[in-house]
Amino acid sequence: MFAVRFAAASRPVLPVCLPWLRSGGRHHTPVAGFHGSALRPGAKVAVIFSGCGVYDGTEIHEASAILVHLSREGAEVKMYAPNVPQMHVIDHTKGQPTESEKRNALVESARIARGKIAELSELKSKDFDAVIFPGGFGAAKNLCTFAVDGKDCKVDKDVERILNEFHKEGKPIGLCCISPVLAAKVLKGTEVTVGHEQAEGGKWPYCETAEAIKALGAKHCVKEVTEAHVDSKNKVVTTPAFMCETGLHHIFDGIGIMVHNVLKLTRK
Amino acid sequence: MFAVRFAAASRPVLPVCLPWLRSGGRHHTPVAGFHGSALRPGAKVAVIFSGCGVYDGTEIHEASAILVHLSREGAEVKMYAPNVPQMHVIDHTKGQPTESEKRNALVESARIARGKIAELSELKSKDFDAVIFPGGFGAAKNLCTFAVDGKDCKVDKDVERILNEFHKEGKPIGLCCISPVLAAKVLKGTEVTVGHEQAEGGKWPYCETAEAIKALGAKHCVKEVTEAHVDSKNKVVTTPAFMCETGLHHIFDGIGIMVHNVLKLTRK
Repeated sequence: MFAVRFAAASRPVLPVCLPWLRSGGRHHTPVAGFHGSALRPGAKVAVIFSGCGVYDGTEIHEASAILVHLSREGAEVKMYAPNVPQMHVIDHTKGQPTESEKRNALVESARIARGKIAELSELKSKDFDAVIFPGGFGAAKNLCTFAVDGKDCKVDKDVERILNEFHKEGKPIGLCCISPVLAAKVLKGTEVTVGHEQAEGGKWPYCETAEAIKALGAKHCVKEVTEAHVDSKNKVVTTPAFMCETGLHHIFDGIGIMVHNVLKLTRK
Repeated sequence: MFAVRFAAASRPVLPVCLPWLRSGGRHHTPVAGFHGSALRPGAKVAVIFSGCGVYDGTEIHEASAILVHLSREGAEVKMYAPNVPQMHVIDHTKGQPTESEKRNALVESARIARGKIAELSELKSKDFDAVIFPGGFGAAKNLCTFAVDGKDCKVDKDVERILNEFHKEGKPIGLCCISPVLAAKVLKGTEVTVGHEQAEGGKWPYCETAEAIKALGAKHCVKEVTEAHVDSKNKVVTTPAFMCETGLHHIFDGIGIMVHNVLKLTRK
């Protein structure tokens, strides 16, 4: 189902003249598609993006780590993003918004998904066993308004619907970095981690997020970057990821623990 | 040196009102920077990007895999991209170029580098022990003109200079996916792999690239996606990566073998 439905999106029409590129575009389906499907049947997991780049979209390395671990564990993956204008377009060389540029969260997310992506409004919880949200400021800008409104933030209506549906159906929800604010806002009383609650000399520069998590009505649980917190009652699994200043492989490993625990919770 | 030099670029100035974001922007250096530096001294490795996204820039998952493996092996990483307009801006949901949009390869690459990136023209081989080029069509569009000119392609003058400098100084060069065409064009007679030479039912959709490699004057060596080819004489290490239609974790693992062999060749 997944391969057929998104074959068109995965076929790049490239204005190039080489036979190998032309034949690639014509004779193979999918061409350079995402390869996220499992060789053996596994859990069906939806992954939700919010753009492409840490400061205005999905954190690229968190997204990639999630997809590597899901692939290794044999999950069948489908990717989604909201078809909305991004709150910002940040020039990542300057860390500042560009003057007049506009970008769409779905179109930019497709860069991470290698074209195999669908509109978030099409996501139905009945088609999946679990859902995972990578972080990046896009989660706090394009999936909700936390970046500007804090505890009074509004959550995208599809994100809210999806969190409520998966929660009601007892299906696990994985989140990392800043995206646990989504679960904290929507699922009252859930337990999440965004890492440590003190800066510790710059190791946890966003440590004040823990207070915001509490203000949203959730319980904050201190965890290391290589750990995940499992709220077994609510089936919410979180890991600090880039909330911590550390080597990328530690973030990768923590995300692996999060993914593993999400998949474990899909087994009845 | 690396941290100080790029501190400014790693400080996002975010138009948001939350204390945790404001304090993050003001009191920590670097804030949400890349964390690519090693905790223990290791090889110094330059990684060269060409944009952000498989069809017009650097393949995101290849870049991320390279950085995860370099981090785990304790390497000190610095990222570069050419400050040039991209050949294309591809809408990755459609696989087609956008009508009028222009993007810069350095600015887009900064999304993968989380802001910690420098102009390719500033890269001096004397500062590094090795250099690695991820793939993605950007390597064939923005680092050279292979995507349109094939074996008659022209190579960006800094890319050509860098390949020649590292080669002359006996420092290893790692490449994956389509980027081996750069080494094939510049370093005559080198051995590289782009995977298999037959399509094998769609598993190797870009298999004709092997013929192009030979036309460029290089020797093509058939390898699996989980392997790397090591040209010990030229210190050129290559792996097929997304040349192969397979699970993402196999691509991740093959890139790990490439990175490991690059670092092994840095030891005298």
